[in-house]
Amino acid sequence: MAYELTVEDLRDLATGAAVLGTGGGGDPLVGRLLVQQALATGHRVRVLEVDELDDDAVVVASAMMGAPTVVLEKLPRGDEGVRALRGLEEQLGRRADAVIPMECGGLNSMVPLLVAALTGLPVVDGDGMGRAFPELQMETFGVYGVSASPLAMADEHGHLAVVDTGTDNAATEWFARGLTIRMGGASYIAEYPMSGADVKRTAIAGTLRLGMLIGRTLREAATGHADPFDALTRALRATPYQHGRVLFRGKVADVERRITDGFTAGRAVLADVEGGADMEVVFRNENVLATVAGEVVAIVPDLICLLDSETGMPVTTDAVRYGMRVTAYGISTPAIMRTPEALAVFGPRCFGLDHDWVPLEQLAPV
Amino acid sequence: MAYELTVEDLRDLATGAAVLGTGGGGDPLVGRLLVQQALATGHRVRVLEVDELDDDAVVVASAMMGAPTVVLEKLPRGDEGVRALRGLEEQLGRRADAVIPMECGGLNSMVPLLVAALTGLPVVDGDGMGRAFPELQMETFGVYGVSASPLAMADEHGHLAVVDTGTDNAATEWFARGLTIRMGGASYIAEYPMSGADVKRTAIAGTLRLGMLIGRTLREAATGHADPFDALTRALRATPYQHGRVLFRGKVADVERRITDGFTAGRAVLADVEGGADMEVVFRNENVLATVAGEVVAIVPDLICLLDSETGMPVTTDAVRYGMRVTAYGISTPAIMRTPEALAVFGPRCFGLDHDWVPLEQLAPV
Repeated sequence: MAYELTVEDLRDLATGAAVLGTGGGGDPLVGRLLVQQALATGHRVRVLEVDELDDDAVVVASAMMGAPTVVLEKLPRGDEGVRALRGLEEQLGRRADAVIPMECGGLNSMVPLLVAALTGLPVVDGDGMGRAFPELQMETFGVYGVSASPLAMADEHGHLAVVDTGTDNAATEWFARGLTIRMGGASYIAEYPMSGADVKRTAIAGTLRLGMLIGRTLREAATGHADPFDALTRALRATPYQHGRVLFRGKVADVERRITDGFTAGRAVLADVEGGADMEVVFRNENVLATVAGEVVAIVPDLICLLDSETGMPVTTDAVRYGMRVTAYGISTPAIMRTPEALAVFGPRCFGLDHDWVPLEQLAPV
Repeated sequence: MAYELTVEDLRDLATGAAVLGTGGGGDPLVGRLLVQQALATGHRVRVLEVDELDDDAVVVASAMMGAPTVVLEKLPRGDEGVRALRGLEEQLGRRADAVIPMECGGLNSMVPLLVAALTGLPVVDGDGMGRAFPELQMETFGVYGVSASPLAMADEHGHLAVVDTGTDNAATEWFARGLTIRMGGASYIAEYPMSGADVKRTAIAGTLRLGMLIGRTLREAATGHADPFDALTRALRATPYQHGRVLFRGKVADVERRITDGFTAGRAVLADVEGGADMEVVFRNENVLATVAGEVVAIVPDLICLLDSETGMPVTTDAVRYGMRVTAYGISTPAIMRTPEALAVFGPRCFGLDHDWVPLEQLAPV
């Protein structure tokens, strides 16, 4: 059933989206403040379930593109996402009936809510990544045949660009990335125009609700002095993600971080607090591989979250520092993200890893 | 009066356009061959004088963007310019009535002719640069108030991009350059959509005819064993460019050439064959400054052409080599390129030169 988001929902969603960001995706803070401001000035964010969509509705994915750290210095004006949407509508010759998040992890959990608030369009509860991923073509929309093109992009100066690469979504990413760099490292996009029927077929449903659930669970665990990880595992059981578990409890012993081709790449070493073998977490914006003594413990597209061992609050790739006590927490992905077609687009080898994917729940706990 | 171009016209134009390229703009060869092929297969290129345009005609500037040397390796498919035009028409919601060259110097003298041949649209005899310049905003169209935006861009893979930066033509250049780099270094664009009345007000008229005149003059001088420079000076007198003269006869004693920010920058030193002081020619893709013993002899936007001392054939910035006997030949620019507004967009300081512009005809001959 359709419902409206409250300010409390936004707070929980910000926490949950940071968990789903798996180290990347950026801090939802700036986005949350903009949506809160919109709510405070009388705007509303109405959420539609995927199955409430008309099959012939026009749905457009909405997101920020670029380096989330840039957003902290180059603050958005606020209407960039709306202007990208309007630019895409112009290109399509049709108005959108709803927006859908491109990515439920990190800052991009908030960007489509702002567009929904400012335009009055409903936002669909679902997305194309089911977590955070670094590139535009890494979306279930594209995996199952929706074209990222045409894509419209706006910046804070009122500039607009449209990219149309037919069915080649990697080319959309390539050109859009180039434009984003020239827009100062962050831009706002409207992409993957599709029908309601396409959304039902290709979206990961319910990820907005999932984000809020994760956030609420961690908040309530903190209030009730409960173990946040146990609470999280219990909460996830009733979602399409199903399996969540602690992979490792450690103390950050080493961090290697470098900016390569516009990505934050590197690895963190967690020392076992009980004196066992170390865990190594490899990241490429997001955490993509966790190993202990060379054995794979969790691997992309399954989620590898580094959470504060005390509070369960997420720690990003950028923020992870020597000495922090963090718990590596794994979350399995829903079936739609685990098909051969999906793994060809965002499986381990798409991140340069020389491993095949093995489902989290089949990997031995440490 | 409107007329049709012949294969002979194309040959002369290729030579003349290389002269007007002032060292840059690229070799018209590939473009000429494509237009010749179009003529051979029954297409026609109809030329309209600027004053024959209806005031409310829709006119679109057509060009290749990027490094002309790339075109020699990454050959165009041939229809890129047409697809850029169609993409822009889609954006405008109107069909074009004519195309106009963006730049009459170098390879871009040919690109709009190919678009005209393939679409059946007339090409307007005029352009926005009156020579070759390295950047999109360096056009009289923009100097006198026409927006470069929306600009449409196509590559040989069928990809299309549209850039709309409102009235900020430097931003159009910035984003279009980024896209061109990601298209492999060369793209085909349709830009500066304008009315026939805009063309009459802002274009440099007659530059296609001028290119053909220069080419024919050099060809006839070669055939008749006449001095090509005297012939050129006589021929230019009856054109809006008026003044042309030999600046220096020399032998290339030194060339410094480096690729900086996507431009070929550097200088050539010409030793005086009669033992006087050397000439230094500074280039930034195009030749932009000629000095002798520190005294300015010619400066952008006036044309500084290095021509083979024997034949008068143009020598490009890329091709100039130690030991070549070249004649530096200066050509003054028409009044529309010499206003304060024009000099603010393509005067000496826009090329990083610490000189004010002085008209060629006011500078003392060496």
